[in-house]
Amino acid sequence: MLELRRHNAAFCSPHFVEFFRRQVTEAIHAYRMFTRDEPILVAVSGGKDSLALWDVLIEEGYRTAGLYLDLGIFDYSQESKARCEAFAAARGEKLYVERVADAVGAPIHEVQKVTRRPTCSACGLSKRYLLNRAALEHGYGVVATGHNLDDEAATLFGSVMHWQTEALARQSPALGATHAKLARRVKPLYRLSELETAGYAFLRKIDYIVDECPFARGATSLAHKEVLNRLEEVSPGAKHNFLFGFLDKARPVFERAADVTLHECRVCGQVTTGELCAFCKLADQVKRRAGAKGAAPAGDHVAPDDGRRPWQTQ
Amino acid sequence: MLELRRHNAAFCSPHFVEFFRRQVTEAIHAYRMFTRDEPILVAVSGGKDSLALWDVLIEEGYRTAGLYLDLGIFDYSQESKARCEAFAAARGEKLYVERVADAVGAPIHEVQKVTRRPTCSACGLSKRYLLNRAALEHGYGVVATGHNLDDEAATLFGSVMHWQTEALARQSPALGATHAKLARRVKPLYRLSELETAGYAFLRKIDYIVDECPFARGATSLAHKEVLNRLEEVSPGAKHNFLFGFLDKARPVFERAADVTLHECRVCGQVTTGELCAFCKLADQVKRRAGAKGAAPAGDHVAPDDGRRPWQTQ
Repeated sequence: MLELRRHNAAFCSPHFVEFFRRQVTEAIHAYRMFTRDEPILVAVSGGKDSLALWDVLIEEGYRTAGLYLDLGIFDYSQESKARCEAFAAARGEKLYVERVADAVGAPIHEVQKVTRRPTCSACGLSKRYLLNRAALEHGYGVVATGHNLDDEAATLFGSVMHWQTEALARQSPALGATHAKLARRVKPLYRLSELETAGYAFLRKIDYIVDECPFARGATSLAHKEVLNRLEEVSPGAKHNFLFGFLDKARPVFERAADVTLHECRVCGQVTTGELCAFCKLADQVKRRAGAKGAAPAGDHVAPDDGRRPWQTQ
Repeated sequence: MLELRRHNAAFCSPHFVEFFRRQVTEAIHAYRMFTRDEPILVAVSGGKDSLALWDVLIEEGYRTAGLYLDLGIFDYSQESKARCEAFAAARGEKLYVERVADAVGAPIHEVQKVTRRPTCSACGLSKRYLLNRAALEHGYGVVATGHNLDDEAATLFGSVMHWQTEALARQSPALGATHAKLARRVKPLYRLSELETAGYAFLRKIDYIVDECPFARGATSLAHKEVLNRLEEVSPGAKHNFLFGFLDKARPVFERAADVTLHECRVCGQVTTGELCAFCKLADQVKRRAGAKGAAPAGDHVAPDDGRRPWQTQ
């Protein structure tokens, strides 16, 4: 019996699985994320969320393939890759594997030394870039990620604490393709909590990697999750109301008309708001550092994101 | 020696007093709260913040009088009134005293039983109403309250957790008079933390009531203050950045053109967005309850505020 205080409901196992899948399909329909006819690239990390998502999409009859980005984080990456491969093999699904080090010039923990920014920042940037590139290369118009309610609420919380109005305008369960070289990006688990995806993965006997990324320790996002959990304890539903209240009432306010002009990066041809995209700047920093060991890092600022407007259907 | 991590500074006593007063005068000028020529009504509770504010205004040569609202909360109200009277007498300043029970029909802890809303809600409503009424009656165009940085950050946090967009549009250190029957409402301490006002009150030997209101225990605003203190510990300046980032970047976004039409209440003549003002509804509920003891409370919803737009000068 699984009790969900937020929904004021308790489920037995088969009904919970059904409830979970219905939440995912409702999310897909509400934001018109994709249809059954188009191929979907599912970004999988080997963790509970992305594998649970892939499982639901397969079971619901969607056309999917997985993409695993190998960040080169020692045993952690080895083990998480093995989980993704086993999952795909057992279900006869295609899994693409891409090594971040090949693209950026060094494994992610080396990259951090060059940029002087937190590891998570360079990692997030690289992942967004490579996901999009892989989708285009392999002919997928949409990338699905396993971000859940807790992830989204924590990201929102961080943006709000600093009133990052551009990030607030862009936070959405579905980002549209505002340029021919951008795949859509969707988060079909945004209605489901961390605990709920763990429950689903458990009931579905999914073998996932339980450890957090070793670089996540002390990350601000974890401090924010802690704060939100504390608020959730005091008033159940707080996280849900925070995220959904934002999506309903506040995001439209931030999504101003202010158009962002997108160009193609002069090095790689992918989309950027500047001349050179943030990923190429990063790769260039890594290369220069490797060429001139000991030289001071350039301190070039990496653009935060691709400036896309969320994809709204209503 | 007083160390302020947020400002990365340490002060000896005379310099702290100077720093504190400069923060207040800068706030007054930045929002053009009032001039030295006009009389200011200072709402005093007997606590550190409002008495510190009154002290600064007197020392800086402003024309002030105090207003104490007696909420009828047993010993707590007795003691806090005594502090205000002693403060005013020692400085030869005028203090108005008004009994909430006379206006609303019952002391504040009785009012709560009628409304089924938290005590703090009926209390806040009554205070806003009576402050404004007293200002008009005694000829003051502006009411100053002792809300500090922690208060403002906690209120903002609460509004954000529920995305109360109307409250967000209205949260400002200065609310203008958008109707002839509204006094301006200003918060000259919004740049100073709770700890800073406590330090100032201590250095100035102000005898204030240390106890919190007995009804505040378990109030959501205290839970929110706790969360913000936790975030402040992790990154000093978090509260300041949260509030100031909001005022700079987000509040203008929420302050939409949507005009609120203000009427005069058909019972008391004060300003309201409806036909009957929230205070008169509350007083009516109290009266009906007293007339028909045991009858179910009407459950009438009390309007949240007067719908005023913040008073901006820039």
